[in-house]
Amino acid sequence: MEEKLDKVRFLVRDVRDYPKKGIVFKDITPVLKDPEAFSSVIESMAAKLSEMEFEYIASIEARGFIIGSALAYKMGKGFIPLRKKGKLPYNTISREYALEYGNAAIEMHADAVSKGSRVVTVDDLLATGGTSKAATELVAEAGGEVACLIYFIELEFLKGREKLGGNKVISLIKY
Amino acid sequence: MEEKLDKVRFLVRDVRDYPKKGIVFKDITPVLKDPEAFSSVIESMAAKLSEMEFEYIASIEARGFIIGSALAYKMGKGFIPLRKKGKLPYNTISREYALEYGNAAIEMHADAVSKGSRVVTVDDLLATGGTSKAATELVAEAGGEVACLIYFIELEFLKGREKLGGNKVISLIKY
Repeated sequence: MEEKLDKVRFLVRDVRDYPKKGIVFKDITPVLKDPEAFSSVIESMAAKLSEMEFEYIASIEARGFIIGSALAYKMGKGFIPLRKKGKLPYNTISREYALEYGNAAIEMHADAVSKGSRVVTVDDLLATGGTSKAATELVAEAGGEVACLIYFIELEFLKGREKLGGNKVISLIKY
Repeated sequence: MEEKLDKVRFLVRDVRDYPKKGIVFKDITPVLKDPEAFSSVIESMAAKLSEMEFEYIASIEARGFIIGSALAYKMGKGFIPLRKKGKLPYNTISREYALEYGNAAIEMHADAVSKGSRVVTVDDLLATGGTSKAATELVAEAGGEVACLIYFIELEFLKGREKLGGNKVISLIKY
């Protein structure tokens, strides 16, 4: 499995100055385009979660959906979308989080999880952890328990884990 | 399979006056939340595509990602995200399409498909077909061929199919 992840790591593309000058963006689209590499990502995540009891995978719009939905399908779990403000049609709960300038919000349907159910949150990338922290708060407010947070890529130098308190955090590839 | 899709249809939730007054929105989140129903959707689509030769699944942000990525994983195909303007990090090609008021654009990485490869486009919903038509044009511009367009839900009264010319169009549930 580690060997397969080496191929995956090789396919992640550095794009300079996106979304703005000075940032090196980790572009995962070459991984997604390669069926074998994409499968390795999903299967590695499933292997890391195989001993864990949980009912739902909650994913963050939009790249998180790509990883989370294939993983939910593979593991036979329910899929819960966390979306940007105004994008979910039914009754929602909402959490703001800080961006570099100003705030953004993510939302979840208030009836998305049943009380006491266990939820794994999935996203493509752990950076500063702001969105992920908001996601864990939404799961708790809806009556669920966060089983763990799992990421395809972790940018360790941004110390996102530190923001996520006592939660279990797993990532496949670290930079 | 048809019986399973009856359960799926039962789970699709009508939300009135979303995104604006007078619209009845088809909310698929109760389907996604139910692992059996979600699996039925992916497996029904895979069955409908089983005889078709193609290499890639191209999906439209953001709900399209949820269906398309699980389907790409299930069928062992490459996954290509089509995103809103400015959301893809590398060199892109772009198509505008008409909204009720004004225009929007979707983009695809210029190197997303290899020349002559066959692509199935996936979205959750076929309404007026404007976004889908733009998607087929992007696939062609990148050098690919559209094998077919597949949808979870089709709103037949909006006649989106008519906009999609000679392309093969498949949907699981029609209203």
